Amino acid sequence: MSTSTDKKLVIRCLQKILPTESVLHKEEDLRPYECDGLSAYQQVPMVVVLPETIKQIEDILSFCTNQTIPVVARGAGTGLSGGALPLENGILMSLARLSRIQNIDIDNRTARVQPGVRNLAISEAASSYGLYYAPDPSSQIACSIGGNVAENAGGVHCLKYGLTVHNILKLEVITMQGEHLTIGSDALDSPGYDLLALMTGSEGLLGVITEITVKLLPKPEAANVILAAFDDVATAGQAVSNIIADGILPAGLELMDNAALRAADDFVNAGYPRDAAAILLCEIDGTSAEVADRLEHAQNVLRTSGATEIRVAHDEQQRAKFWAGRKAAFPAVGRLSPDYYCMDGTIPRYQIANVLTRISELSNEYRLPIVNVFHAGDGNLHPLILYDANIDGELERTEELGGKILEICVEAGGTITGEHGVGMEKINQMCVQFNSMELQQFHAIKHAFDPDELLNPGKAIPTLHRCAEFGAMHVHHGQLPHPELERF
Amino acid sequence: MSTSTDKKLVIRCLQKILPTESVLHKEEDLRPYECDGLSAYQQVPMVVVLPETIKQIEDILSFCTNQTIPVVARGAGTGLSGGALPLENGILMSLARLSRIQNIDIDNRTARVQPGVRNLAISEAASSYGLYYAPDPSSQIACSIGGNVAENAGGVHCLKYGLTVHNILKLEVITMQGEHLTIGSDALDSPGYDLLALMTGSEGLLGVITEITVKLLPKPEAANVILAAFDDVATAGQAVSNIIADGILPAGLELMDNAALRAADDFVNAGYPRDAAAILLCEIDGTSAEVADRLEHAQNVLRTSGATEIRVAHDEQQRAKFWAGRKAAFPAVGRLSPDYYCMDGTIPRYQIANVLTRISELSNEYRLPIVNVFHAGDGNLHPLILYDANIDGELERTEELGGKILEICVEAGGTITGEHGVGMEKINQMCVQFNSMELQQFHAIKHAFDPDELLNPGKAIPTLHRCAEFGAMHVHHGQLPHPELERF
Repeated sequence: MSTSTDKKLVIRCLQKILPTESVLHKEEDLRPYECDGLSAYQQVPMVVVLPETIKQIEDILSFCTNQTIPVVARGAGTGLSGGALPLENGILMSLARLSRIQNIDIDNRTARVQPGVRNLAISEAASSYGLYYAPDPSSQIACSIGGNVAENAGGVHCLKYGLTVHNILKLEVITMQGEHLTIGSDALDSPGYDLLALMTGSEGLLGVITEITVKLLPKPEAANVILAAFDDVATAGQAVSNIIADGILPAGLELMDNAALRAADDFVNAGYPRDAAAILLCEIDGTSAEVADRLEHAQNVLRTSGATEIRVAHDEQQRAKFWAGRKAAFPAVGRLSPDYYCMDGTIPRYQIANVLTRISELSNEYRLPIVNVFHAGDGNLHPLILYDANIDGELERTEELGGKILEICVEAGGTITGEHGVGMEKINQMCVQFNSMELQQFHAIKHAFDPDELLNPGKAIPTLHRCAEFGAMHVHHGQLPHPELERF
Repeated sequence: MSTSTDKKLVIRCLQKILPTESVLHKEEDLRPYECDGLSAYQQVPMVVVLPETIKQIEDILSFCTNQTIPVVARGAGTGLSGGALPLENGILMSLARLSRIQNIDIDNRTARVQPGVRNLAISEAASSYGLYYAPDPSSQIACSIGGNVAENAGGVHCLKYGLTVHNILKLEVITMQGEHLTIGSDALDSPGYDLLALMTGSEGLLGVITEITVKLLPKPEAANVILAAFDDVATAGQAVSNIIADGILPAGLELMDNAALRAADDFVNAGYPRDAAAILLCEIDGTSAEVADRLEHAQNVLRTSGATEIRVAHDEQQRAKFWAGRKAAFPAVGRLSPDYYCMDGTIPRYQIANVLTRISELSNEYRLPIVNVFHAGDGNLHPLILYDANIDGELERTEELGGKILEICVEAGGTITGEHGVGMEKINQMCVQFNSMELQQFHAIKHAFDPDELLNPGKAIPTLHRCAEFGAMHVHHGQLPHPELERF
């Protein structure tokens, strides 16, 4: 499929499946699709298709299977690990036009939506019934629910309400062969193998999601936030553990270090204590009685954990201001440095103080400042490495430092991703996270859905060959369980 | 492996892997393993092995793979769908001797346990730290955590705290090839495909679980229960929906109809209102403030939903009595009839009233009494069909009626199992639940783990051939996506 004749043929065939204006092939039309939220990786695809119906998706995938053309599905393109990076000889399938909320079921508290629906649009539509959709990635204004499922997206509320996988009930999926699968059900449990969780977070490698049934939750009667200041980051990290260990489950528990809180305060005037080494934002929701009770309890724990100052938002306006700072933290940090690299690793909560100390040591060693602002309650770190891409070698040093941080997360019993996925970005670190047996098992799963490896190839799961080159190949008992997979 | 010479050879080989007394092969030693909790199905295995170490499990599985001998893993044998039914020419591997609690991690609130540990033993061990393990199947005194994972077990508390799959973090698994997989991690999320949920509830078809890391929760500060009586079962069913729709999430929400509550009251003197058509037990837990507030709220909803009588347990003793009746309901119903058949289907909550009405109609049509006692909040029905196996044809009529009930659950948007699994019992109903595309996808997953189909063959996932014979084969687009799987 590398010659221009072949490309013309592909375009003509796709134009039989889709209206002409839904098949993009001119350089200027393709350019907007060359990357997702991880713009360090760029590649213009051969063709972009914009299907509007399930039938079109089935036909496109059948056509691509017959012609052995790889396909990358794309939601809103806000992903941060390059999961929607196109392939030079592949088709990029945007699901943006499948953007209907099909149904909101009040009795069963669910919404049935198409993949292109924006995350926040679900809560907006459910709002008049007193309901909302809990997972809230920072990009929730823009990101699509289909992309959320593909990446198993998280957010501030996930500490209490779970990740995407815990908030969906059913998926409609088209396989690479153009066949339809219904995965999960409208009931709590489903027989057969649990493919719902398998599909969630599979980064577009197993099928194309065409409909999602999400759970809706009743909006809490009350909510308030505590801001606690600390004169040491590790102490703040330990306070996070203490809160959870004391049986409090906040609706959000976020940590910002001094650089992050100052940047945010400069940007949106959040009213943060600017001299604190770190602050925690601890959100409590529930009934009014419950919130009052837990706010008291949480303040006690924070006090005995060494907080130097504790403020409870005295009204809704102040609560919104405290959160505005957290929500603006990433763009605020963007003003500190020409470039930054946002990492995403997860560690057991009790390791927070230890890992933050090691990250600070690495920052000194590499002479690259690191700002920390993250979902502390989940143990989901987001170290932001500040660098300048115009200084020779600085991007490479940044990537090396980022890789080291992820390896520390794995050593600490954690993982190389919290909510951003593996995509292209962390594919080498997968060789650190998993041994060759485990990677082969992943390839066998891929084979069970997409034997010709046409769906988003090269992402998420490294080949054993790649791991060997990366020097992180785990040799395990010296033999392969699936000899037919030796080619991976 | 059908001749006695072959059997002798197998025994000799196993005795090289295990101590002689850990390889059972005499008729009288095998007999106790001929069935699990579903005693209608019985089969004595060729050999029973009782490994005590991981190495022994690896060696047994490698040996069986080399010799093409099927293996069925067994926990405590309390399963209710025949998932641990042995095979005549197969090895039954009991995991009862792997019964150590390896570690309780207070900071991370997890316990690392071997598969043979009893469900309740985990909470007992964690109790002195103020922690417990939430899922509580009725068999929790006896059932093993390994079996809980294999069947994705539920229980009263699952409404608020989730099924087994929501309460585990990490599994150590040995594949049929004798290889080791670590699935999941100590952190909240894990990269790669989500094999943790896939393995959970896979009914022993994908691997042998050798270690489980479970989440522990802090014991709630307070708990109390409301007993609400109704003069109509459907009204009680609707009240369940109303409670959840009003934003209350009880720690348990159970329904018993008149026959069930009378039987329980006769058995343990629970103090139930004996003339009620149905009662609901609604457990609330949390902080003292939260419990007081929600008890009030729940009573209001129950009142406006038509409860004829509402009692809040006035002390811990009365609370225990109310629950004792529910916990004793199954053995109590056992005193009403020579035999009963416990069904297990799940439906969307708002369908409860409708489905209960249809079950009652079927009961009349088949002239077989049905008693209802179930996890109403989850929509997880347990209709108990009363019959007498000594009356000719009554068992067959019971099984037919049971099948019809499950089909009604599927029609109502639900599933054929809530927490008991498919096993042997519901394998035909899987043909109703899934189309041939979906079943083929399941077989492809099986193939990815166990290409020779040696682990618990014949359970959980029906062959397409079986579905065709059952007359419930869905023809779908007239073609198979995985031609290599046509043999299924």
